[in-house]
Amino acid sequence: MKIINTDAIDEAQINMLINVRIKAVNQKDIDSVMYNYASDVASFDAVEPLQYSGSDTIRKRLEAWFASFLGFPCYEMSDLKITAANDLAFYFSLNHIVANKTNGGKLDMWWRETVCYRRINGMWLITYVHSSVPFNMHSGKASLYLKPTVIMRVNPYGYSS
Amino acid sequence: MKIINTDAIDEAQINMLINVRIKAVNQKDIDSVMYNYASDVASFDAVEPLQYSGSDTIRKRLEAWFASFLGFPCYEMSDLKITAANDLAFYFSLNHIVANKTNGGKLDMWWRETVCYRRINGMWLITYVHSSVPFNMHSGKASLYLKPTVIMRVNPYGYSS
Repeated sequence: MKIINTDAIDEAQINMLINVRIKAVNQKDIDSVMYNYASDVASFDAVEPLQYSGSDTIRKRLEAWFASFLGFPCYEMSDLKITAANDLAFYFSLNHIVANKTNGGKLDMWWRETVCYRRINGMWLITYVHSSVPFNMHSGKASLYLKPTVIMRVNPYGYSS
Repeated sequence: MKIINTDAIDEAQINMLINVRIKAVNQKDIDSVMYNYASDVASFDAVEPLQYSGSDTIRKRLEAWFASFLGFPCYEMSDLKITAANDLAFYFSLNHIVANKTNGGKLDMWWRETVCYRRINGMWLITYVHSSVPFNMHSGKASLYLKPTVIMRVNPYGYSS
Protein backbone atom coordinates (compact mmCIF):
# COMPACT_ATOMS: atom_id res chain seq x y z
CA MET A 1 0.00 0.00 0.00
CA LYS A 2 1.14 3.49 -0.83
CA ILE A 3 -0.11 6.55 0.98
CA ILE A 4 0.01 9.48 -1.40
CA ASN A 5 -0.36 13.12 -0.39
CA THR A 6 -2.50 14.24 -3.31
CA ASP A 7 -2.61 17.82 -1.97
CA ALA A 8 1.18 18.01 -2.36
CA ILE A 9 0.90 16.66 -5.91
CA ASP A 10 -1.79 19.25 -6.70
CA GLU A 11 0.33 22.03 -5.22
CA ALA A 12 3.25 20.88 -7.40
CA GLN A 13 0.94 20.99 -10.45
CA ILE A 14 -0.13 24.55 -9.64
CA ASN A 15 3.53 25.46 -9.08
CA MET A 16 4.35 24.14 -12.54
CA LEU A 17 1.51 26.16 -14.12
CA ILE A 18 2.82 29.28 -12.36
CA ASN A 19 6.35 28.68 -13.65
CA VAL A 20 5.04 28.24 -17.19
CA ARG A 21 3.16 31.54 -16.83
CA ILE A 22 6.21 33.42 -15.47
CA LYS A 23 8.21 32.31 -18.51
CA ALA A 24 5.31 33.20 -20.85
CA VAL A 25 5.00 36.75 -19.44
CA ASN A 26 8.75 37.26 -19.86
CA GLN A 27 8.41 36.18 -23.48
CA LYS A 28 5.18 38.19 -24.05
CA ASP A 29 3.63 34.89 -25.17
CA ILE A 30 -0.04 35.72 -24.74
CA ASP A 31 -1.44 32.32 -25.76
CA SER A 32 0.64 30.55 -23.10
CA VAL A 33 -0.31 33.12 -20.44
CA MET A 34 -4.00 32.72 -21.31
CA TYR A 35 -3.85 28.92 -21.56
CA ASN A 36 -5.59 28.03 -18.31
CA TYR A 37 -8.02 30.87 -17.67
CA ALA A 38 -11.67 29.81 -17.41
CA SER A 39 -13.69 31.65 -20.08
CA ASP A 40 -15.89 33.19 -17.35
CA VAL A 41 -12.98 34.09 -15.02
CA ALA A 42 -13.84 36.92 -12.59
CA SER A 43 -11.23 39.62 -12.13
CA PHE A 44 -10.45 42.30 -9.58
CA ASP A 45 -7.66 44.05 -11.48
CA ALA A 46 -4.98 46.41 -10.14
CA VAL A 47 -6.37 49.17 -12.37
CA GLU A 48 -10.00 50.26 -12.88
CA PRO A 49 -12.80 49.21 -13.11
CA LEU A 50 -13.91 47.72 -9.77
CA GLN A 51 -14.47 44.31 -11.36
CA TYR A 52 -14.96 42.62 -14.70
CA SER A 53 -15.23 39.09 -16.03
CA GLY A 54 -14.26 36.99 -19.01
CA SER A 55 -10.94 35.75 -20.37
CA ASP A 56 -11.51 37.86 -23.53
CA THR A 57 -11.21 41.04 -21.47
CA ILE A 58 -8.12 39.75 -19.69
CA ARG A 59 -6.53 38.90 -23.05
CA LYS A 60 -7.24 42.41 -24.44
CA ARG A 61 -5.76 44.07 -21.32
CA LEU A 62 -2.73 41.80 -21.52
CA GLU A 63 -2.22 42.60 -25.21
CA ALA A 64 -2.33 46.34 -24.47
CA TRP A 65 0.06 45.85 -21.50
CA PHE A 66 2.58 43.84 -23.53
CA ALA A 67 2.32 46.36 -26.42
CA SER A 68 3.31 49.16 -24.01
CA PHE A 69 6.70 47.48 -23.35
CA LEU A 70 9.75 48.25 -25.45
CA GLY A 71 11.20 44.75 -25.93
CA PHE A 72 10.72 42.11 -23.26
CA PRO A 73 9.88 42.79 -19.62
CA CYS A 74 11.57 41.23 -16.63
CA TYR A 75 8.78 39.55 -14.67
CA GLU A 76 9.24 37.65 -11.43
CA MET A 77 7.22 36.43 -8.47
CA SER A 78 8.07 36.31 -4.77
CA ASP A 79 6.50 35.05 -1.54
CA LEU A 80 4.45 32.43 -3.35
CA LYS A 81 2.07 30.43 -1.12
CA ILE A 82 0.04 27.71 -2.81
CA THR A 83 -2.80 25.83 -1.12
CA ALA A 84 -4.59 22.94 -2.82
CA ALA A 85 -7.23 20.46 -1.70
CA ASN A 86 -8.96 18.16 -4.16
CA ASP A 87 -10.33 20.18 -7.04
CA LEU A 88 -9.75 23.61 -5.50
CA ALA A 89 -6.52 25.58 -5.20
CA PHE A 90 -5.39 29.12 -4.66
CA TYR A 91 -2.16 31.03 -4.39
CA PHE A 92 -1.03 34.37 -2.99
CA SER A 93 2.10 36.06 -4.30
CA LEU A 94 3.98 39.30 -4.79
CA ASN A 95 4.65 39.99 -8.47
CA HIS A 96 7.24 42.29 -9.99
CA ILE A 97 7.55 43.78 -13.44
CA VAL A 98 10.42 45.83 -14.82
CA ALA A 99 10.09 47.12 -18.36
CA ASN A 100 11.09 49.99 -20.62
CA LYS A 101 7.96 51.54 -22.05
CA THR A 102 7.26 52.60 -25.61
CA ASN A 103 6.36 56.07 -24.28
CA GLY A 104 9.89 56.49 -22.92
CA GLY A 105 9.05 55.77 -19.28
CA LYS A 106 10.20 52.90 -17.15
CA LEU A 107 7.91 50.51 -15.29
CA ASP A 108 9.20 48.98 -12.04
CA MET A 109 6.30 47.83 -9.91
CA TRP A 110 5.43 45.22 -7.31
CA TRP A 111 1.83 44.14 -6.78
CA ARG A 112 -0.11 41.52 -4.83
CA GLU A 113 -1.90 38.68 -6.57
CA THR A 114 -4.42 36.07 -5.47
CA VAL A 115 -5.45 33.43 -7.98
CA CYS A 116 -8.05 30.71 -7.45
CA TYR A 117 -8.25 27.56 -9.52
CA ARG A 118 -10.85 24.83 -10.00
CA ARG A 119 -10.02 21.49 -11.55
CA ILE A 120 -12.62 21.00 -14.26
CA ASN A 121 -12.52 17.78 -16.29
CA GLY A 122 -9.05 17.13 -14.94
CA MET A 123 -7.65 20.52 -15.94
CA TRP A 124 -6.78 23.33 -13.53
CA LEU A 125 -8.55 26.51 -14.64
CA ILE A 126 -8.19 30.00 -13.18
CA THR A 127 -11.66 31.09 -12.06
CA TYR A 128 -10.80 34.20 -9.99
CA VAL A 129 -7.93 36.69 -10.08
CA HIS A 130 -7.36 39.54 -7.65
CA SER A 131 -4.44 41.89 -8.38
CA SER A 132 -3.78 45.10 -6.50
CA VAL A 133 -1.43 47.62 -5.00
CA PRO A 134 -2.34 49.20 -1.67
CA PHE A 135 -2.88 52.95 -1.37
CA ASN A 136 -1.51 55.59 0.95
CA MET A 137 -4.24 56.74 3.31
CA HIS A 138 -2.97 60.35 3.49
CA SER A 139 -2.25 61.07 -0.17
CA GLY A 140 -4.99 58.84 -1.63
CA LYS A 141 -2.38 57.70 -4.16
CA ALA A 142 -1.77 54.12 -5.23
CA SER A 143 1.49 52.87 -3.69
CA LEU A 144 3.31 51.94 -6.88
CA TYR A 145 6.87 51.92 -5.50
CA LEU A 146 6.66 49.53 -2.56
CA LYS A 147 8.95 46.51 -2.39
CA PRO A 148 8.95 43.36 -0.27
CA THR A 149 11.50 43.54 2.53
CA VAL A 150 12.95 40.18 1.50
CA ILE A 151 12.49 38.80 -2.00
CA MET A 152 11.80 35.06 -2.08
CA ARG A 153 11.97 34.55 -5.80
CA VAL A 154 10.04 31.94 -7.75
CA ASN A 155 12.33 30.72 -10.48
CA PRO A 156 10.78 30.64 -13.95
CA TYR A 157 12.43 27.33 -14.79
CA GLY A 158 11.22 25.45 -11.78
CA TYR A 159 14.31 25.29 -9.58
CA SER A 160 15.41 27.45 -6.66
CA SER A 161 17.79 30.28 -7.45
CA MET B 1 -28.55 5.72 1.52
CA LYS B 2 -28.27 9.49 1.49
CA ILE B 3 -26.06 11.37 -0.94
CA ILE B 4 -25.01 14.60 0.67
CA ASN B 5 -23.41 17.52 -1.16
CA THR B 6 -20.86 18.41 1.53
CA ASP B 7 -19.50 21.29 -0.60
CA ALA B 8 -22.93 22.95 -0.44
CA ILE B 9 -23.00 22.44 3.35
CA ASP B 10 -19.53 23.96 3.63
CA GLU B 11 -20.53 26.91 1.47
CA ALA B 12 -23.56 27.44 3.73
CA GLN B 13 -21.25 27.39 6.76
CA ILE B 14 -18.97 30.01 5.22
CA ASN B 15 -22.04 32.06 4.31
CA MET B 16 -23.15 31.96 7.95
CA LEU B 17 -19.70 33.09 9.14
CA ILE B 18 -19.84 35.98 6.66
CA ASN B 19 -23.27 37.03 7.90
CA VAL B 20 -22.05 36.96 11.50
CA ARG B 21 -19.12 39.16 10.48
CA ILE B 22 -21.31 41.66 8.60
CA LYS B 23 -23.43 42.10 11.71
CA ALA B 24 -20.32 42.36 13.91
CA VAL B 25 -18.78 45.13 11.75
CA ASN B 26 -22.06 47.07 11.87
CA GLN B 27 -21.99 46.78 15.66
CA LYS B 28 -18.23 47.53 15.90
CA ASP B 29 -17.97 44.23 17.80
CA ILE B 30 -14.25 43.53 17.37
CA ASP B 31 -14.17 40.18 19.20
CA SER B 32 -16.87 38.76 16.91
CA VAL B 33 -15.16 40.12 13.79
CA MET B 34 -11.84 38.58 14.89
CA TYR B 35 -13.38 35.27 15.99
CA ASN B 36 -12.24 33.11 13.11
CA TYR B 37 -8.96 34.62 11.96
CA ALA B 38 -5.98 32.24 12.10
CA SER B 39 -3.31 33.76 14.35
CA ASP B 40 -0.82 33.71 11.45
CA VAL B 41 -3.29 35.07 8.86
CA ALA B 42 -1.55 36.74 5.89
CA SER B 43 -2.99 40.03 4.72
CA PHE B 44 -2.83 42.15 1.59
CA ASP B 45 -4.67 45.19 2.91
CA ALA B 46 -6.37 48.01 0.95
CA VAL B 47 -3.94 50.49 2.56
CA GLU B 48 -0.14 50.23 2.96
CA PRO B 49 2.08 48.30 3.56
CA LEU B 50 2.42 45.79 0.69
CA GLN B 51 1.74 42.87 3.04
CA TYR B 52 1.70 41.93 6.69
CA SER B 53 0.70 38.96 8.80
CA GLY B 54 -0.86 38.12 12.13
CA SER B 55 -4.32 38.53 13.59
CA ASP B 56 -2.88 40.94 16.21
CA THR B 57 -2.06 43.46 13.46
CA ILE B 58 -5.50 43.02 11.89
CA ARG B 59 -7.13 43.62 15.28
CA LYS B 60 -5.12 46.82 15.86
CA ARG B 61 -6.00 48.15 12.40
CA LEU B 62 -9.65 47.28 12.97
CA GLU B 63 -9.68 49.03 16.35
CA ALA B 64 -8.21 52.19 14.77
CA TRP B 65 -10.73 51.96 11.90
CA PHE B 66 -13.74 51.55 14.23
CA ALA B 67 -12.45 54.38 16.48
CA SER B 68 -12.43 56.71 13.45
CA PHE B 69 -16.23 56.30 13.04
CA LEU B 70 -18.69 58.60 14.77
CA GLY B 71 -21.31 56.11 15.97
CA PHE B 72 -21.96 52.96 13.99
CA PRO B 73 -21.08 52.42 10.34
CA CYS B 74 -23.35 50.94 7.70
CA TYR B 75 -21.47 47.96 6.30
CA GLU B 76 -22.73 45.69 3.57
CA MET B 77 -21.44 43.16 1.06
CA SER B 78 -22.44 42.52 -2.54
CA ASP B 79 -21.58 40.08 -5.33
CA LEU B 80 -20.57 37.36 -2.90
CA LYS B 81 -19.21 34.18 -4.51
CA ILE B 82 -18.26 31.36 -2.15
CA THR B 83 -16.39 28.23 -3.24
CA ALA B 84 -15.74 25.36 -0.84
CA ALA B 85 -14.24 21.91 -1.25
CA ASN B 86 -13.41 19.73 1.73
CA ASP B 87 -11.25 21.72 4.13
CA LEU B 88 -10.58 24.64 1.82
CA ALA B 89 -12.86 27.56 0.95
CA PHE B 90 -12.63 31.03 -0.43
CA TYR B 91 -14.92 33.89 -1.28
CA PHE B 92 -14.78 36.99 -3.45
CA SER B 93 -17.00 39.98 -2.68
CA LEU B 94 -17.53 43.70 -3.03
CA ASN B 95 -17.74 45.41 0.36
CA HIS B 96 -19.23 48.79 1.20
CA ILE B 97 -18.80 51.02 4.21
CA VAL B 98 -20.66 54.25 4.94
CA ALA B 99 -19.73 56.09 8.13
CA ASN B 100 -19.49 59.55 9.61
CA LYS B 101 -15.96 60.12 10.78
CA THR B 102 -14.76 61.64 14.04
CA ASN B 103 -12.69 64.12 11.98
CA GLY B 104 -15.89 65.50 10.41
CA GLY B 105 -15.51 63.70 7.09
CA LYS B 106 -17.74 61.05 5.60
CA LEU B 107 -16.57 57.65 4.44
CA ASP B 108 -18.48 55.99 1.58
CA MET B 109 -16.31 53.41 -0.09
CA TRP B 110 -16.57 50.13 -2.00
CA TRP B 111 -13.66 47.72 -2.11
CA ARG B 112 -12.91 44.20 -3.33
CA GLU B 113 -12.23 41.38 -0.91
CA THR B 114 -10.91 37.84 -1.28
CA VAL B 115 -10.83 35.66 1.82
CA CYS B 116 -9.44 32.14 2.05
CA TYR B 117 -10.33 29.67 4.79
CA ARG B 118 -8.90 26.37 5.97
CA ARG B 119 -10.85 24.02 8.21
CA ILE B 120 -8.48 23.23 11.08
CA ASN B 121 -9.70 20.84 13.79
CA GLY B 122 -13.23 21.24 12.48
CA MET B 123 -13.20 25.05 12.61
CA TRP B 124 -13.08 27.34 9.58
CA LEU B 125 -10.21 29.78 10.00
CA ILE B 126 -9.32 32.73 7.78
CA THR B 127 -5.75 32.17 6.59
CA TYR B 128 -5.50 34.83 3.85
CA VAL B 129 -7.22 38.14 3.23
CA HIS B 130 -6.80 40.36 0.19
CA SER B 131 -8.61 43.73 0.25
CA SER B 132 -8.12 46.44 -2.35
CA VAL B 133 -9.43 49.23 -4.48
CA PRO B 134 -8.15 49.57 -8.04
CA PHE B 135 -6.27 52.68 -9.16
CA ASN B 136 -6.65 55.04 -12.09
CA MET B 137 -3.80 54.52 -14.52
CA HIS B 138 -3.68 58.19 -15.58
CA SER B 139 -3.91 59.94 -12.20
CA GLY B 140 -2.11 57.25 -10.15
CA LYS B 141 -4.84 57.75 -7.54
CA ALA B 142 -6.70 55.03 -5.71
CA SER B 143 -10.26 54.77 -7.07
CA LEU B 144 -12.16 55.32 -3.84
CA TYR B 145 -15.51 56.29 -5.34
CA LEU B 146 -16.34 53.41 -7.66
CA LYS B 147 -19.58 51.50 -7.22
CA PRO B 148 -20.83 48.18 -8.57
CA THR B 149 -23.26 48.64 -11.47
CA VAL B 150 -25.80 46.39 -9.77
CA ILE B 151 -25.74 45.78 -6.03
CA MET B 152 -26.46 42.17 -5.06
CA ARG B 153 -26.63 42.63 -1.34
CA VAL B 154 -25.76 39.99 1.26
CA ASN B 155 -28.22 40.37 4.07
CA PRO B 156 -26.62 40.54 7.52
CA TYR B 157 -29.34 38.37 9.02
CA GLY B 158 -29.06 35.52 6.57
CA TYR B 159 -32.08 36.07 4.33
CA SER B 160 -32.40 37.76 0.97
CA SER B 161 -33.50 41.37 0.97
